[in-house]
Amino acid sequence: MTEEERYALGLETMNAVNDGSAQKVLDGLGDVAPELARQIVSWGFGEIYSRPALGPRDRQLLTIGMLTVMGGCEPQSELHVGTALNVGLTPAEIVEALLQSAGYCGFPKALNATAVAKKVFGERGLLPVREA
Amino acid sequence: MTEEERYALGLETMNAVNDGSAQKVLDGLGDVAPELARQIVSWGFGEIYSRPALGPRDRQLLTIGMLTVMGGCEPQSELHVGTALNVGLTPAEIVEALLQSAGYCGFPKALNATAVAKKVFGERGLLPVREA
Amino acid sequence: MTEEERYALGLETMNAVNDGSAQKVLDGLGDVAPELARQIVSWGFGEIYSRPALGPRDRQLLTIGMLTVMGGCEPQSELHVGTALNVGLTPAEIVEALLQSAGYCGFPKALNATAVAKKVFGERGLLPVREA
Amino acid sequence: MTEEERYALGLETMNAVNDGSAQKVLDGLGDVAPELARQIVSWGFGEIYSRPALGPRDRQLLTIGMLTVMGGCEPQSELHVGTALNVGLTPAEIVEALLQSAGYCGFPKALNATAVAKKVFGERGLLPVREA
Amino acid sequence: MTEEERYALGLETMNAVNDGSAQKVLDGLGDVAPELARQIVSWGFGEIYSRPALGPRDRQLLTIGMLTVMGGCEPQSELHVGTALNVGLTPAEIVEALLQSAGYCGFPKALNATAVAKKVFGERGLLPVREA
Amino acid sequence: MTEEERYALGLETMNAVNDGSAQKVLDGLGDVAPELARQIVSWGFGEIYSRPALGPRDRQLLTIGMLTVMGGCEPQSELHVGTALNVGLTPAEIVEALLQSAGYCGFPKALNATAVAKKVFGERGLLPVREA
Repeated sequence: MTEEERYALGLETMNAVNDGSAQKVLDGLGDVAPELARQIVSWGFGEIYSRPALGPRDRQLLTIGMLTVMGGCEPQSELHVGTALNVGLTPAEIVEALLQSAGYCGFPKALNATAVAKKVFGERGLLPVREA
Repeated sequence: MTEEERYALGLETMNAVNDGSAQKVLDGLGDVAPELARQIVSWGFGEIYSRPALGPRDRQLLTIGMLTVMGGCEPQSELHVGTALNVGLTPAEIVEALLQSAGYCGFPKALNATAVAKKVFGERGLLPVREA
Repeated sequence: MTEEERYALGLETMNAVNDGSAQKVLDGLGDVAPELARQIVSWGFGEIYSRPALGPRDRQLLTIGMLTVMGGCEPQSELHVGTALNVGLTPAEIVEALLQSAGYCGFPKALNATAVAKKVFGERGLLPVREA
Repeated sequence: MTEEERYALGLETMNAVNDGSAQKVLDGLGDVAPELARQIVSWGFGEIYSRPALGPRDRQLLTIGMLTVMGGCEPQSELHVGTALNVGLTPAEIVEALLQSAGYCGFPKALNATAVAKKVFGERGLLPVREA
Repeated sequence: MTEEERYALGLETMNAVNDGSAQKVLDGLGDVAPELARQIVSWGFGEIYSRPALGPRDRQLLTIGMLTVMGGCEPQSELHVGTALNVGLTPAEIVEALLQSAGYCGFPKALNATAVAKKVFGERGLLPVREA
Repeated sequence: MTEEERYALGLETMNAVNDGSAQKVLDGLGDVAPELARQIVSWGFGEIYSRPALGPRDRQLLTIGMLTVMGGCEPQSELHVGTALNVGLTPAEIVEALLQSAGYCGFPKALNATAVAKKVFGERGLLPVREA
């Protein structure tokens, strides 16, 4: 792949799972860190996320777990919960993942992540969550 | 203990150290993650916190240290600083614990936790803190 | 569920995904923290992991991501990579998850987790990993 | 050094790199944790930061990296990005440091730190950042 | 306090709770970072730990919680579990603190800390731990 | 840059600051995660580290700070302390950076990183470190 192809594939990959998310990253970083924005698109999505070895549903499940443990990444969690819904994870599955996270990173971080999920679900009219 | 007994003991334990805190958890999670709320009550408090091997003052001191190190858990810290006061830790002891935390997790997290403590102390009319 | 039923379900759940793992936890903690062992079995597996809202493959993918981000949890990662293989994640999928983790928690932790995966794969004769 | 000399050197050191920052710390903590404030001044700056073995530019570069990895320390990052500019790091160097951090602690924390830098740069009329 | 008095108080404080621990720190760091060793003694113990606002038992309980959450600090945990026993925390109380930590930072870190505690208890002939 | 050029630049950049380090990464990951190895070379060094906006001395100072805070990354710290020496940071500067880190991430992680530095300095005959 050339540099242009990687960037184009990154944009396409980002928009396929969360339409408009690439533009949001580019806009937010454009005047401060355009290279960081470019790397998220070209590398994060063009090179890594687009690889077929894991599908989007698996990648989002993984990402939700990782962001929950990291803590302090609520803006990113919000984006990724939305993407998770887009690629087929149900609210009940996301909530179950956060319940499981309590055993691995404790209740406080599980609660923080659940508050983010609640916000996203609410905005999409997905509350109350029906237990699986 | 049956499941109902654990849940009842959890509610009682939570309310004994922080009246209304159980309801707040249940209300906040009710439409998104009721099972997470139930586990915090039944397991976190009904099974663990209620064990007599450590009393509430010790448990809260420990919790304040853990939340300070975790970072990004200001909502939980706020609740637990309030509980700490309820079970007999003085503002001066809490502040001293946060001073000690600086040597273990650094000044930035100690400052974040102290800002939370200041908020809680202020709401309870406990400022200025008198040095022990 | 009674307490005995939860414990029995926990043991069954643990052994279904990783035969002998429950006994290993019980043996390791028996003389120091038997209650911690009991809670891992009864609560972690009897109450949480056994819930049908997410299957074992999803749970292990999530766990691998969480342990990678936490860092310093190599003994637990080793166990969970083994379980991941048992429940159907392929070595190529696990390696792909760790590659993705690099973008979320950086290369150092991704490398630590990959070293653990390599050890487990080697013990099972699964090296070299064939790219998906 | 006597205790008074250490405190005076700390104040002088803080104000030399960020005029008014000492007073801000003292004011913020005065009624809740005056000893913590005193230790930040006397020890953090009077004993450590003032040592000639590393100059302020090196110390701020280091601090920006550390705060980015810690996460959840946006208030401290804001102060330290300002100090970094004061001691000669350019916006382009700061942004480059945050780009590099992505490989060590992942994109989410790099993005959080970049948002803080953008805020500080904007307040000082330093946007858009010109690539080095 | 003069610098010499702080250092002397630090040595005395360290040795009062863990005889020989100061010398161990000084020996380990003497040829690489003597100033770091001096600061641990003079500041960590001479200025902070020696303050009467919290007694050694409270400080060790707090420290055990903080080190458990931090992760990757097994050498320090080992020292501090020993100190905790010296200042009156019982093995059952330490184990209970680690059980509680599971709800705040998850089972993996609780297990790592429990493994350290088991090692220290074993060396002192304190196994099996009798439940409180 | 084509993909081959990025890879070649990454190899050249890695070897310029730490001869043989690229081969070590490639060998360690070759049979388990060759794509991860390729990305460290091509992206981490070919795209990011090679950018002229920060020189190697600045990048290594930053990296040492980040790895110290992350914790549990001793293998990576060992490599990067060696690289830091190669690009002109003196042992006294590295030790000073770790002393400063104590105020930001606490003594336990500063001690862990100092133990790694001591090992590397010892292997290169750089002990005792002369204070700057």
